[in-house]
Amino acid sequence: MKPETIKKLEELKNCLKEIHYLEHASAILSLDRSVSMPKNGSKDRGEVLGCLSNIVYNIITSDRFKNLIYSFQEEDLDFISQRGIKKLKKYFEDMNKVPEDRQQQWIITTSEAQSKWEEAKIKDDYSIFKPSLEEIINMTREFLEYYGYEENPYDALLDKYQSGLTVKKLDKVFYDLKEGLVDILNKLKESNVIIKEDFLKKKTCKTQQKELCMYVLNKIGFDFNSGAVAESEHPFTTNTSNKDIRLTVKYVENNFTKAIFSSIHEGGHGIYEQNIPESLSDIGLNGAASMSLHESQSRFYENIIGRSYEFWKGIYPKAQEIVNHLKDVSLDDFYKAINKVEPSLVRIKSDEVTYNLHIIIRYELEKMIVNGEVNLNDLPELWNKKYNEYLGMNAENYEDGILQDMHWGAGMFGYFPSYALGNIYSAQFLNAMFKDMPNMYEEIGKGDLSHVNKWLRENIHCHGEIYDTDELLKKVTGEELNCKYFLDYLRNKYSKIYNVSL
Amino acid sequence: MKPETIKKLEELKNCLKEIHYLEHASAILSLDRSVSMPKNGSKDRGEVLGCLSNIVYNIITSDRFKNLIYSFQEEDLDFISQRGIKKLKKYFEDMNKVPEDRQQQWIITTSEAQSKWEEAKIKDDYSIFKPSLEEIINMTREFLEYYGYEENPYDALLDKYQSGLTVKKLDKVFYDLKEGLVDILNKLKESNVIIKEDFLKKKTCKTQQKELCMYVLNKIGFDFNSGAVAESEHPFTTNTSNKDIRLTVKYVENNFTKAIFSSIHEGGHGIYEQNIPESLSDIGLNGAASMSLHESQSRFYENIIGRSYEFWKGIYPKAQEIVNHLKDVSLDDFYKAINKVEPSLVRIKSDEVTYNLHIIIRYELEKMIVNGEVNLNDLPELWNKKYNEYLGMNAENYEDGILQDMHWGAGMFGYFPSYALGNIYSAQFLNAMFKDMPNMYEEIGKGDLSHVNKWLRENIHCHGEIYDTDELLKKVTGEELNCKYFLDYLRNKYSKIYNVSL
Repeated sequence: MKPETIKKLEELKNCLKEIHYLEHASAILSLDRSVSMPKNGSKDRGEVLGCLSNIVYNIITSDRFKNLIYSFQEEDLDFISQRGIKKLKKYFEDMNKVPEDRQQQWIITTSEAQSKWEEAKIKDDYSIFKPSLEEIINMTREFLEYYGYEENPYDALLDKYQSGLTVKKLDKVFYDLKEGLVDILNKLKESNVIIKEDFLKKKTCKTQQKELCMYVLNKIGFDFNSGAVAESEHPFTTNTSNKDIRLTVKYVENNFTKAIFSSIHEGGHGIYEQNIPESLSDIGLNGAASMSLHESQSRFYENIIGRSYEFWKGIYPKAQEIVNHLKDVSLDDFYKAINKVEPSLVRIKSDEVTYNLHIIIRYELEKMIVNGEVNLNDLPELWNKKYNEYLGMNAENYEDGILQDMHWGAGMFGYFPSYALGNIYSAQFLNAMFKDMPNMYEEIGKGDLSHVNKWLRENIHCHGEIYDTDELLKKVTGEELNCKYFLDYLRNKYSKIYNVSL
Repeated sequence: MKPETIKKLEELKNCLKEIHYLEHASAILSLDRSVSMPKNGSKDRGEVLGCLSNIVYNIITSDRFKNLIYSFQEEDLDFISQRGIKKLKKYFEDMNKVPEDRQQQWIITTSEAQSKWEEAKIKDDYSIFKPSLEEIINMTREFLEYYGYEENPYDALLDKYQSGLTVKKLDKVFYDLKEGLVDILNKLKESNVIIKEDFLKKKTCKTQQKELCMYVLNKIGFDFNSGAVAESEHPFTTNTSNKDIRLTVKYVENNFTKAIFSSIHEGGHGIYEQNIPESLSDIGLNGAASMSLHESQSRFYENIIGRSYEFWKGIYPKAQEIVNHLKDVSLDDFYKAINKVEPSLVRIKSDEVTYNLHIIIRYELEKMIVNGEVNLNDLPELWNKKYNEYLGMNAENYEDGILQDMHWGAGMFGYFPSYALGNIYSAQFLNAMFKDMPNMYEEIGKGDLSHVNKWLRENIHCHGEIYDTDELLKKVTGEELNCKYFLDYLRNKYSKIYNVSL
């Protein structure tokens, strides 16, 4: 590269560093808010976060920064810098699409809506949340027009979480997925296998749960020199850099596997972030390719690894040592219990087979909402109609029905598909991984996951945001988005557990 | 006040708010560093804190801010605003006394010295720390000349932690204090009373210790809606506002009272901060009057309340319920054990009687160091000589000797006297409090501390930084700094415990 280009890249690196520092501060302050902050600290904390985000906004919208970004010529740059500059330009353009006063109103509206949602959920009263939801939907529809879209307005929302994703693409994949899942579910119903799971509900003290979670996180390759675990009501992952990843877990006394699987899930997000090379931060590409790719990693670890027979084979003696009451439970019974398929009303309590049906329900409803095809008064009824159709169940309260998720209150229309895509990608990656390492499960059975971690790091994590999700998928698997591998994975696994042909 | 003055005060309030927000962020990031941050996050965190402090520095040194401060005329202001502006001006003047490049060098030097001190302490090797200590001392002596002083160079350092404090004043008080303490110690040696304390060393699990600490903190009036407790290697208190105070505690398995008394100590700091009115933040007076006044509150709660017979009388049944092995220990035996007097080598392990002798040793050494009267090679020997003279003991390693405190590595020459002053003030306050509420101990004996908290809030805490320490002391007690009350308090308490005439 020309000396002048190198000099400008150095300047950009310094700007990004300052932004990174302020975002680092915000991440820790937000984490602290969920994990440790006392109740009365709330108002101040909101203002501090607002102040920091204002400083970032002023840097990003400064002429100096903007002129710098637009001063680069593509032909002067190497490949990675080209991608970085492209991403920064898109970021600018997206940011400038929505008028500033409307952006600020959005922050206020979604912040209020989240409180209303919480209150509504606690009181099990949809009417408390409805006015806020309506406002968010109206603003979302207004914003869609700023963002722009080619075919379906909902495309503009999908694009936010996975660049280039469209309704056209998703409709097809979700149709195939739904057909496959419903078929599997129907066949599983004919099985005679009865799965016991009472031992999963036995009281397990926090100290034991914690010890097992830390053991498991260590096992899957989460690096505690560059990460730590805290407690919060809803588990999540946050990070300041690849050297400081924070996971949160919730320990439930009479459901100890909840903490374990959410540790593995969040650990999967964390390992992804830990493996992204620091050097990519120089050009702002040190994130994940997309939210769905992030979910593909967390769900790969949680389900494909964490609910596999081999994984537990490798660590079961240790688990029995830590959680005493597992001494009377065989590995086989334990494995079946953690994989029991049972339609439920609540997404986050659902199993691998039914999970994606929860997502498809939300996807279908969101499209209708965004396209103005449903009256908010009728939404709870429509919700139940869909649950009846896909899962044969009816929510008897709002808490287990339309108020179960925080996403709409946070204005995150378009996010839900990321979870299902994450599942689909995870199985596509498994297929590619298995081709490269046919004895991978044997190694896992010995309690060794280093090869899995290495493969993911070298094939996926090391690329950060250099490639779009589609490109990366193609690069790693040679294929496009395809739900076949996920359905095959389920058929193979569950036909053995339930002793039926799928 | 004139409308123009009100307008300018409003502008000042907004500036102070922005500074407050950034300091809020730094406080939480520093807390997180001690409490949760993984090892590899260290380098980034240092840079983030540097970035935030730079932003604050830029606001404070901006012409806008400076001109604003100096635009106020004293006669236009009400009393509190006068005091606030006076404090801000002093802050400016002090800041401008040291050249900027030397200030930055100071941050680097003390940061390195702290690491060297840690390493030296672990390896028990004074020579590792000595070069850093020498550099810090040289810089401290250089800075003294910038600060200026009237009589003794050390006065400039004392002034940093308690405005207006001088060697002349301290020498006199510490002389009286030393005489009194040595006299008490000699008489206690003649006592026949033997105090058992083996039960304090019994293994107590963290869950029980935690429960008792939270119970005790609640009891003394620490408000958990505006505060929280975390764990760290060295206990400390930090805060972002009166609505968010964080204490840290260390739980030691075979020494459960360590966590309890450090909880009460940090709780005392915390209650002080919680009780400072928020309105004082508008003019930057929402801190403590001085560090010694801060210590007076923590040590009031820790010792005068927390080691009193009546306090434990009020809560002992509950303590026995939580810590099972206390069931076999009488209240009397427990009370004596937590008040056992025994000269020791380590300041933070020492009792109420000998504690101040540790401080006086440091004070005497610091004066010599600052006045260039001691060669650093001879310092350990001099340290031992003083310990021999005052406490009849010799440190056999550096860890329990000259390397025990972090203060010198952090460049905090002049801070140690705050602890002894804190003790002296706490007894002066006790005397005033007892005059106002002669039945205060009866109430405490019933487990009720609300009157103590109310008295401290109304007489001390509510004033924030409006008054200097001397003024506040006069206002509350009608007297100046006087160690008589502290010595009387010790004589009264320990003559009963040790059954001797003091």
